[in-house]
Amino acid sequence: MSAFPSDPSPSTDARTPLFDRMAVIGMGLIGGSVARRAMGDHGIARELVAFDADPAARDRVRALGIAHDVPDTLADAVRNADCVMLCVPVGAMGAAAAAAMPHLRPGAILTDVGSTKQSVIREVQPILRPEIGFVPAHPLAGTEHSGPDAGFATLFEGRWSLLTPVDGAAPPEAVVAVEALWRRCGAMTRRMDPAHHDKVLAIVSHLPHLLAFTICGTADDLEGESRSEVLQFAASGFRDFTRIAASDPTMWRDVFLNNRDALLEMLARFTEDAQAMARAIRWGDDDFIVDRIERGRRIRRSLIEIKQA
Amino acid sequence: MSAFPSDPSPSTDARTPLFDRMAVIGMGLIGGSVARRAMGDHGIARELVAFDADPAARDRVRALGIAHDVPDTLADAVRNADCVMLCVPVGAMGAAAAAAMPHLRPGAILTDVGSTKQSVIREVQPILRPEIGFVPAHPLAGTEHSGPDAGFATLFEGRWSLLTPVDGAAPPEAVVAVEALWRRCGAMTRRMDPAHHDKVLAIVSHLPHLLAFTICGTADDLEGESRSEVLQFAASGFRDFTRIAASDPTMWRDVFLNNRDALLEMLARFTEDAQAMARAIRWGDDDFIVDRIERGRRIRRSLIEIKQA
Repeated sequence: MSAFPSDPSPSTDARTPLFDRMAVIGMGLIGGSVARRAMGDHGIARELVAFDADPAARDRVRALGIAHDVPDTLADAVRNADCVMLCVPVGAMGAAAAAAMPHLRPGAILTDVGSTKQSVIREVQPILRPEIGFVPAHPLAGTEHSGPDAGFATLFEGRWSLLTPVDGAAPPEAVVAVEALWRRCGAMTRRMDPAHHDKVLAIVSHLPHLLAFTICGTADDLEGESRSEVLQFAASGFRDFTRIAASDPTMWRDVFLNNRDALLEMLARFTEDAQAMARAIRWGDDDFIVDRIERGRRIRRSLIEIKQA
Repeated sequence: MSAFPSDPSPSTDARTPLFDRMAVIGMGLIGGSVARRAMGDHGIARELVAFDADPAARDRVRALGIAHDVPDTLADAVRNADCVMLCVPVGAMGAAAAAAMPHLRPGAILTDVGSTKQSVIREVQPILRPEIGFVPAHPLAGTEHSGPDAGFATLFEGRWSLLTPVDGAAPPEAVVAVEALWRRCGAMTRRMDPAHHDKVLAIVSHLPHLLAFTICGTADDLEGESRSEVLQFAASGFRDFTRIAASDPTMWRDVFLNNRDALLEMLARFTEDAQAMARAIRWGDDDFIVDRIERGRRIRRSLIEIKQA
């Protein structure tokens, strides 16, 4: 069980907006999806302000009409907001939080959507003003697409959003408000210890992505003829890896670097297991091989039973 | 380019059955799909005979009505057939071929669907009677399901079937007939050298399966709470691996053991690449990480361009 019990019933009515003015910083897949959702009639925010450090992305957000206002500076975007959500790569979270901090109004909630939680907390907490509530969160949703055009309002429906609140960083009602925000995005919420979050995500998400990027690189290094045939005959399993491997490079570089310890630990376990499989194949250890394959099937069956497949 | 040019135009009309009596040995996903296809009006066989070593599978095939005849012995199934297709796990190919050989009629074609080609050729060729034509083949199609109920007549549509004919093992017209058979199953065909086949399949199929089985095992070994959360939050990448990992254990054990050298070579390359990635993450080598991620995206884009995604 998590150390943080969830409050399943936010007190505000679903149609009364949670926030008067919400600012979303970073208009990638996640930020663009939150903005689209908040622009709809889901009781999230009366006014949705968007910002992206890239002027072209800001122009695109204006053209798409997925925010009420798109100021040209981060300071103007976060000023007077009662909720500011950082949707930038985790390597840029510290700088974004630092840039926003002096302009936040007292009582504002600062939250983020980073895939690594300990690193974001490590960067934001030391610079947090006492009158600002910081609520780290991570919606487990995504596609292999990125940029302002990639988002959609239903991205979070039926998905989890994990909150990793930190003692003393936010009043309890700020955590409840961020939970309500994600529920109104269609997500289910769960509170979790940040270190535990990073460990679980290392195996369910970061390691699979690392393996997918790596096998694509291994295939890319093959000599000419074999390499073109990898593409031709990819349907036989390889293809499932390339979908994962199509994700945004900056985001994933930052995830790997910012969840280094948990990821390297999981990769080390995985590598030991892969070497044990290699040894079993080399020496014809049928029972070992079948046992490992059976585990895969068992896990798949469990997934289907809990309707995650 | 392949050493074996394909004949793109089989001389027989698509509605004249290629074979009078075709026997399919092994009623798993592939065998059951070929049987269903051959029972349809695709010009494959006038009479479709099915056999499975498992009496329960034979009963199920009879109940499903996906063969004209389901004899109780392999000898009765292959007798008088002008085409016999072995659809058993690759580790059972040698024994199945040996059991069939004395009962094949002169001029009959023996073919198989094994995922490894050198091992099947190594087992079948020494016991081949001179009046039998042996045409090794491998349809690149499948799902994670297995058994007589899993098959369907359209499984091979738009997929590749690779033929790896061997000098002196079959007359040219036998190879052309097996090509025509796969085209009438809806597949595209390509001729390929057996060793090259095994190398390409090692990277596009066998290694991805090995990695998927392994990561499921690594997750399965986690301590209680983390393990259950892996299932809960699997949508973040891990899930794509479990689909692959749900495949038939006997089939995959046999594939790994029978393509050992090519698979271990590809796993060794992959492991070097994964270790290089681990090192880059440990030391914060941004450029290296981004380069590997970019390769994944490039390969994905190439796949989309050639419509394999």
